[in-house]
Amino acid sequence: MTSIPVMINGLPGNVAQIMASAAIRDERLTLVPFSLTGEIIDDPSVTVDGQKITLLKPSIRDSRIGHILEAYPDLIVVDYTHPTAVNANAEFYTEHRIPFVMGTTGGDRDALEAVVNLADTPAVIAPNMAKQIVGLQAMFEYAAKTFPGLFKDYTLEVKESHQQGKADTSGTAKALVSCLNDLGLGFDVNDIQQIRDPKVQEKEWGIPKEHLGGHGWHTYTLRADDGSSLFEFTHNINGRDIYVSGTFDAVVFLDKKRREDDDGKRLYTMIDVMTQPG
Amino acid sequence: MTSIPVMINGLPGNVAQIMASAAIRDERLTLVPFSLTGEIIDDPSVTVDGQKITLLKPSIRDSRIGHILEAYPDLIVVDYTHPTAVNANAEFYTEHRIPFVMGTTGGDRDALEAVVNLADTPAVIAPNMAKQIVGLQAMFEYAAKTFPGLFKDYTLEVKESHQQGKADTSGTAKALVSCLNDLGLGFDVNDIQQIRDPKVQEKEWGIPKEHLGGHGWHTYTLRADDGSSLFEFTHNINGRDIYVSGTFDAVVFLDKKRREDDDGKRLYTMIDVMTQPG
Repeated sequence: MTSIPVMINGLPGNVAQIMASAAIRDERLTLVPFSLTGEIIDDPSVTVDGQKITLLKPSIRDSRIGHILEAYPDLIVVDYTHPTAVNANAEFYTEHRIPFVMGTTGGDRDALEAVVNLADTPAVIAPNMAKQIVGLQAMFEYAAKTFPGLFKDYTLEVKESHQQGKADTSGTAKALVSCLNDLGLGFDVNDIQQIRDPKVQEKEWGIPKEHLGGHGWHTYTLRADDGSSLFEFTHNINGRDIYVSGTFDAVVFLDKKRREDDDGKRLYTMIDVMTQPG
Repeated sequence: MTSIPVMINGLPGNVAQIMASAAIRDERLTLVPFSLTGEIIDDPSVTVDGQKITLLKPSIRDSRIGHILEAYPDLIVVDYTHPTAVNANAEFYTEHRIPFVMGTTGGDRDALEAVVNLADTPAVIAPNMAKQIVGLQAMFEYAAKTFPGLFKDYTLEVKESHQQGKADTSGTAKALVSCLNDLGLGFDVNDIQQIRDPKVQEKEWGIPKEHLGGHGWHTYTLRADDGSSLFEFTHNINGRDIYVSGTFDAVVFLDKKRREDDDGKRLYTMIDVMTQPG
C-alpha cells in the first residue's frame, strides 16, 4: 500500500501539532509540508519533529493550492483549526475536491453538512474522534432506541472536567444526556456540572498535573429514587493522543471510499469509519 | 383488566417473600395462597403480610396441583426456589401447562431450555430480573457485535461484591466480561475480584450496613495501556427490590403471550419482556 499524503491544517495549534507529529510516525501516511493557518499567525512556517511545514493564511491559500495538488494529487486533509474557520475551510476543500476529516468543532454544523452533501468528494465529520467515546455514545443511542424509559424513576447527576480555557459545556456530555433523557431521566443540560478550576481538578478529581491543560473527565451517575440501585459511567481522557487513532482511521477510510464505486454518499461519521474499517 | 393469579414458589425463602409481599400490593396480580417449597421445610404454611400461604413439598404437590388449577385456571408461576430444584420444577410446570417465570439461577440450563422448547406453555427464563442490568448487558452485547476490538490495547479490572454466602463468581460479571473480551480486552474470568468480607464491604466500599446481607456491587475499569484514557462502569444494587419490577413485567408478558396467536415460540428472555411490554 502506498502511503496517503495528508495535510494537517491548524498548525501551529496544539492538536494539529500532535496530529502532524503522529502522521510523520505513521507509515500509512505521508505528511504534506503545508498547513492552512489563521490570518493572525505571523510565522511563515513551523517545524514539527524536524520537518518544516509552510503555513498558508486564507489570503494566500487560493494561489498556492493548485501547485500543492499537482505535487500531491491524492491529498486528504485533516482539519483541526478553529470554530470560526470550519465553514469557510469546508467550502475551500469541496471546491478543490479534497476529501477531508473535520475534527474541528463549532461553526454552523448544518451549513457544513449541506456543503459536503452537495460536493464531489467524501468527508468525515466528527465532533469527537475518540473511537471509544463514539462507541459509548452508540451504546447509549442503541439503549435509548431499544429500551426507552429504562431508567425512569432514576435521578441523574453529570459532572465534566475540562481545561480551564473551555468555556462551553462539553458536546459529548450534551449528546449523552440526550440519550439518557430518552431512557427516562428528564435531565436539564443546564444542570451539567462544569469543573474548570485546576485546583479542584488536581486535588479533588486526581487529574494528573501534566494533563490539567488538556483533558476531558466525565462521570454520569444514575440513582434509583428508592435507593435500591446506582449506575455510574465514567470516561476520563488525558491529553489528545486518543484522537490520533480515530482521525487517521478516518483518513484511511476516505482514501478507500474515493477509490470505491461511487454510492452517491458524501458525508460520513466516525460510526461509518468504525463499522467499515479500511 | 382482571388481575392475574400468581403463585410464588420458594417460600419461605427471602426473595420469594419479597415477591409475595409485592404481589399482594400489585393490583395487576392476585397472590395464590400456595407455594412450592423444599422437602426439608417443616412448616405447613407461612404468613406474608397477614396472608396465609400453604407450603407444598415435592412429595405432595402432585396430589394438590389439580385442585389449585381448578380454582385458578389462569395461574402463572414465579419460581425463586433453589438451584437444585430448577429442572424438576420446570418439568412440573410444563407437565401441568403452567406458564412460568424462572428467576432461580443454577441447575442444568440447557436441559431447562430444552424442556421449555418442547412444552405447550410459554416461559421467561432470566438469570437476572433487574431490567437496568439486563439493558446494560444488551448495550455491551451490541457494542461487542458492532465494534469488535474497540478496546484493544486496554487492560480490564473487575471487582464484584456480594453477600458473604455467595460462593461463586457473579454470573452477570461473567456475562459482561464475555462481551468485554469481544471488545478486545482479553480478560480471564478467573481474575474477577470477588469481595465477600463484610468489613471490607462496609469500610472500603461504603455498602450500607443494612444491605451487607444482600447486595451486588460491580465495577468494571478499562485502562488504556498508554495511560491516555480510563472508562469505568459501575452498577450497585442494594437489596432485592429491583428484581420485583422485572419479574412482574415478565408475568404480565406471559399472560399476554398465551392469549395471543400461537407463534410456536415458548422460551422468552427479559430482553423479549423489555422490548415487547404488555
